[in-house]
Amino acid sequence: MTQTRQGKEFKIIGQGIPRVDSVERVNGKAVFSADLTLQGTLHGKILRSPYPHARIKRIDAAKALQLPGVKAVITGADLPPLVQDTANVGGETAVQAGYMRQFLLAEDRALFHGHPVAAVAATTPQIAEDALSLIEVEYEPLPVVDDILEAMKPDSPVIHPELRTKSLAGASKDPTNVALHVVAERGDLAKGFEDADLVIEREYFVDMVHQGYIEPQACTVVVDSDGHMTMYNSTQAAFRQKIQIATLLDMPQSKVKVVPLEIGGGFGGKSPTVPELPTALLALKTGQPVKTVLSRTEVFLATGPAPDSYSYVKIGAKRNGQITALQAKYVLNCGCVPGAGLTINNILVGYSLYKAGAFRFDGYEVVTNKSRTLPYRAPGMPNGAFAIESAMDELAQALGIDPLDLRILNASEDGDIMTDGKKLPSTGLKATLKQVKAHPAWASPLLPGRGRGVAVGMRLEGAGVSSAHITANTDGTFNLVIGSVDLTGTRTTMVQIAAETLGIDVSDISVSVGDTDSVGFTDGSWGSRITYVTGAAVLKAAQETLRQLKERAALRLRVEPSAIEYRDRVFYVADNPEQRISLADLCRANVGQGAGAIIGYGVAGGMQLVSSLAVHVGEVEVDRETGKVYVVKYTAFQNPGLAINPVEVQGQMQGGAAQGVGWALWEGYYWNKGQLVNANFLDYRMPTFLDLPMIDAVFVGEPAKEGPLGVRGVGEISIVPPLPAIGNAISAATGVRMTQAPMTSQRVLSALQQHNGGSSS
Amino acid sequence: MTQTRQGKEFKIIGQGIPRVDSVERVNGKAVFSADLTLQGTLHGKILRSPYPHARIKRIDAAKALQLPGVKAVITGADLPPLVQDTANVGGETAVQAGYMRQFLLAEDRALFHGHPVAAVAATTPQIAEDALSLIEVEYEPLPVVDDILEAMKPDSPVIHPELRTKSLAGASKDPTNVALHVVAERGDLAKGFEDADLVIEREYFVDMVHQGYIEPQACTVVVDSDGHMTMYNSTQAAFRQKIQIATLLDMPQSKVKVVPLEIGGGFGGKSPTVPELPTALLALKTGQPVKTVLSRTEVFLATGPAPDSYSYVKIGAKRNGQITALQAKYVLNCGCVPGAGLTINNILVGYSLYKAGAFRFDGYEVVTNKSRTLPYRAPGMPNGAFAIESAMDELAQALGIDPLDLRILNASEDGDIMTDGKKLPSTGLKATLKQVKAHPAWASPLLPGRGRGVAVGMRLEGAGVSSAHITANTDGTFNLVIGSVDLTGTRTTMVQIAAETLGIDVSDISVSVGDTDSVGFTDGSWGSRITYVTGAAVLKAAQETLRQLKERAALRLRVEPSAIEYRDRVFYVADNPEQRISLADLCRANVGQGAGAIIGYGVAGGMQLVSSLAVHVGEVEVDRETGKVYVVKYTAFQNPGLAINPVEVQGQMQGGAAQGVGWALWEGYYWNKGQLVNANFLDYRMPTFLDLPMIDAVFVGEPAKEGPLGVRGVGEISIVPPLPAIGNAISAATGVRMTQAPMTSQRVLSALQQHNGGSSS
Repeated sequence: MTQTRQGKEFKIIGQGIPRVDSVERVNGKAVFSADLTLQGTLHGKILRSPYPHARIKRIDAAKALQLPGVKAVITGADLPPLVQDTANVGGETAVQAGYMRQFLLAEDRALFHGHPVAAVAATTPQIAEDALSLIEVEYEPLPVVDDILEAMKPDSPVIHPELRTKSLAGASKDPTNVALHVVAERGDLAKGFEDADLVIEREYFVDMVHQGYIEPQACTVVVDSDGHMTMYNSTQAAFRQKIQIATLLDMPQSKVKVVPLEIGGGFGGKSPTVPELPTALLALKTGQPVKTVLSRTEVFLATGPAPDSYSYVKIGAKRNGQITALQAKYVLNCGCVPGAGLTINNILVGYSLYKAGAFRFDGYEVVTNKSRTLPYRAPGMPNGAFAIESAMDELAQALGIDPLDLRILNASEDGDIMTDGKKLPSTGLKATLKQVKAHPAWASPLLPGRGRGVAVGMRLEGAGVSSAHITANTDGTFNLVIGSVDLTGTRTTMVQIAAETLGIDVSDISVSVGDTDSVGFTDGSWGSRITYVTGAAVLKAAQETLRQLKERAALRLRVEPSAIEYRDRVFYVADNPEQRISLADLCRANVGQGAGAIIGYGVAGGMQLVSSLAVHVGEVEVDRETGKVYVVKYTAFQNPGLAINPVEVQGQMQGGAAQGVGWALWEGYYWNKGQLVNANFLDYRMPTFLDLPMIDAVFVGEPAKEGPLGVRGVGEISIVPPLPAIGNAISAATGVRMTQAPMTSQRVLSALQQHNGGSSS
Repeated sequence: MTQTRQGKEFKIIGQGIPRVDSVERVNGKAVFSADLTLQGTLHGKILRSPYPHARIKRIDAAKALQLPGVKAVITGADLPPLVQDTANVGGETAVQAGYMRQFLLAEDRALFHGHPVAAVAATTPQIAEDALSLIEVEYEPLPVVDDILEAMKPDSPVIHPELRTKSLAGASKDPTNVALHVVAERGDLAKGFEDADLVIEREYFVDMVHQGYIEPQACTVVVDSDGHMTMYNSTQAAFRQKIQIATLLDMPQSKVKVVPLEIGGGFGGKSPTVPELPTALLALKTGQPVKTVLSRTEVFLATGPAPDSYSYVKIGAKRNGQITALQAKYVLNCGCVPGAGLTINNILVGYSLYKAGAFRFDGYEVVTNKSRTLPYRAPGMPNGAFAIESAMDELAQALGIDPLDLRILNASEDGDIMTDGKKLPSTGLKATLKQVKAHPAWASPLLPGRGRGVAVGMRLEGAGVSSAHITANTDGTFNLVIGSVDLTGTRTTMVQIAAETLGIDVSDISVSVGDTDSVGFTDGSWGSRITYVTGAAVLKAAQETLRQLKERAALRLRVEPSAIEYRDRVFYVADNPEQRISLADLCRANVGQGAGAIIGYGVAGGMQLVSSLAVHVGEVEVDRETGKVYVVKYTAFQNPGLAINPVEVQGQMQGGAAQGVGWALWEGYYWNKGQLVNANFLDYRMPTFLDLPMIDAVFVGEPAKEGPLGVRGVGEISIVPPLPAIGNAISAATGVRMTQAPMTSQRVLSALQQHNGGSSS
């Protein structure tokens, strides 16, 4: 596929070249954090609370310390005083450092099942494990708050006595579990509903799920004799984690270096540090490298799953389908750490898909005795979309209108004011919906017994800052260092941008992810920002490299830099092309000697946000005896803008859809009075290849007008439509409306039974 | 000591702060190459020729490969075809890649005792060692060329049949062992000697010595599945070695990364790669990390000692001391690798100390069946100074003139044309000589039985290119990355320059040595260029960082950048100092968000050369029964220019003087028909603290006019005067003139016996 941009035809951008790291990924030679064992490494293990809520009355590590091979035990008492209990630590805008730290290592109270209360460093992982059982902890169990709606009631026990509800009206007066209340409204809601011919009103529940990355968190922390700490870990956000660790341990940032190793998935769950804090305390205490590798159970318990939620949607519409009023409530479980406000904003913006005559949104963030919750691919938006896109489907059914036509009728247009008051960038929503409607995925005849559902998702992306630099070698090859951790083929797409700009081959550039010393500050690999923002930084770095090369060529050919042209690895004088020097000769003569190094630095930040849009069509069969849902076809339409590497984009679309379908049908945390009972991959059911059809990834729409390359974020939006798309398909197939995700066989069967008056089919 | 520069008073520059890495150096936690063992590491060992010259007829590794634990054996047959047999590979201007590679791994011939002929990788170092003895090599001994003067004779066997003498006259016609003949002349030499009242004519010999760094070479090479090679090693020149390995293995430079670890001394001897090439071949063959650590014997045999030499000096002078003619010859042993031409040029420039009416210099570089020779602190110059400074002393004695007065009379002046035709930069030679003459080290009364000798050395320094960059953290601390390996306290002096410029404390900046990806091209840590050139790069990086900070402050305070002043960690508007933002607040608001990363890059190269000057006064007692020389006092005068860190400068002066005294009195290779017989620290005698007096380091002279900081190179010049200073002191004490270094007890006793007509005292 040849891509063009502003009339220019690309050679390397737009090619689906294999990942530059594909061989070592496949043969197992890539070094992940658990693979790294430095000399003299001690092994860390973490003792966790069996209680969801308890006072810690006493911790006695004496017996553990007597076990041969045990080098240190740390508890919350080893934490330094927290000097800066500010929010916005390491990019988590709304999270106070104190809560963040409390989650990572308990002090006086255990706040959730799995909360770290102590950690051991020993010469082998087995000894460390043994030592855990020798640590005596005396707990006094406290009342457990394990349900968001219960937690909001005035008579609920309060988890954080100092917590007050933040809202535009200021802080609330009384202690509460409601950390945040966001309100957005527009127009006369009551009148809107009065004007409606039909009103749909529903509640929706989505269970807590885990991001389910392949690689559990692992880290090695080394503190040198001068007090400089180096942290090798599996992170989406090396720079943000550097800031976190420095803040939480009250160290200057210049004393902390984070070296991100290969990462086996993150999906938002590896944004903040997890085992790094107790591991750092062990390293400080022992003076030796300490390595901690979490087990899968620990990952489920205490890393930060995606929040469960309650939603309420009420839509009023005219008989022709025009929406006259839309009211929504959203309650998000932030677990024991308040501060997930950004997620609520995501959901709010998601409601901007449709023009609603009048609108009101109430978003709540509620504290419970559970693990803190974290972003998971398009944070919160699948929960939000499950509500609004299911309600839209129900409205279409009730009105007898094609659900795509209903959406086309109400679709927001570029430049409309969004639910958060800002202007909607270009989305091409209406055109895309029309394209989907005409596509065989939607238009082809449906086999008997099947149901087809459609749902839409929309996000805005491109925040944050990124850095990259390119250095020239003396043989005319180059080295590109990026600040963004590579979760999704980033190194490959970045090297494509650099090679295209420098007019050389991808194989002429080595690319690596820098540590926090070797490259400028770069935000996390999250929010579908990499190709858009880091890509802009790499483009600048390559342009600056080329500028410096032209300047050197000009010096050498004794002309002004403006007189220099470059093509096919040759610099020449525009007026006299015989006056020339090759790229390799220029580098040979002018990098290791003469004026010296050529270094092109690129920084990008504060960019205009760009939209990403996905429309999914799912087709299911439902076994009416068992409630089991078979996904027989699945088509993901998405506008990636200009696709730097179409194969990688397709992979992102398919991966997100697969995760969304898993969430829709199978994945969810099971609780028993605040204790997690399915913290393993046997009882927590993620889809395998056998559970899914081949997901058809279809590109739609135009390159973005925003940004220098026309790209859009692609990683996140594809997880947004699956929950409602599958729910709507189930409804189409069976006539029952699912309002609780995951839509397990049990739940579907139960709904079918209710629908049929309590008797099985 | 408060330093000032152009009227500005420094706060941090000029302070003798302790090394930033001092604690980990002392407690043994610094990671040197031999300390690093990556997971899955194999251990490399090298099989070496016992013959100084032999044809390799057959290598049979079958038995070695059958030994359990042996993973691979490589020989010269594993080398790829050498595509670029060019000179100037990795900064060694005059060395052909082919000769360089031949030295590192023999192909058809062993050219010196210790020449690598094969290498083994095995699971333990012991198995690898055992395997060496199972490799069968059939040698056919060839005639050995082991003496430079014999090697020059027309009937000598020729080592490299293709070698021709390079000179201004072009290449010679016949095969030869003389690789290079440099001639410099000026004036009418015959007339000069005719005009002289007195002529001194002497021959001088200096034995081969080793740099004697504490840490033997060690490296680990890893090749990933995509063919990218990473080399962790002990190197003075990571970037140069990257180029070398890429060239010698015919790889693009983008596929090679060098990670320099802590280094335990180099003194020029760790400029090119040594065990890295066979280790890389083993890593390529096995696909596993391979680590090779040389033994001390291997270091002596085959890493590259400093050349032995022959010198001839003839000086003619008027009775008042004025030199009318000066003729010198210099023959340097380059071992089996031709291309040490730069060293000869150093010596030639060294002859510019004195105005000579007429001058002729003939420099020769001669090939022998010995290890290639390498730079050793002020390469070649101690050999050169031993000749001219001994001859000057003898002339002074013959004329009855104070040796300092003789030098003052003939001293070159700033701007004089040097022996190489270029202009002499500022040296302050005459003033310095006068200062020394008045100093108690020279002027104080001499105790009976003692002798005092003086000698001078002068070098030009500051070639090559360096890079550095500074990134800002969000808390107002900074990270400095330099491309120069730290042999001499470089990190400390560089952080002083950065902290001074940014107006912060040294502890606010972390400093690290980058790998070849993370920072721009930087020349080797050699040639006393670091503080001068890398210092200029760090200064630029800090100035650029400050410029970016001011720009951000201006944006924030809504004024033009030119209106912003900065003092005491606060940016403020010059006209309205209350309009201000602190450094920490600015970084917090403007690095991790907004415009993004702040990165100041500095590149320095093509700088004006700067002189360094040393005058040493040694005082000795000689035991006339044994010939043993006791150094009782030693004073090193040197012009360091502005001393960034005076304690480090003193350390350099004392270290160089100590090494020079070792060379003067004890150190030297002993040979038996091309076989080295003292390849260990028992038989190769380096001075200990007990052998030396406290060396008094005295700063003289003015800051340099060249360069942005007024610094001069300090590392090298202090090894130049000791050989003649000690020789001259022996002459003053005993009346005998030593012309062969080291001036061992045996040689001094023999000279005393000859002087006294063959009978002891």
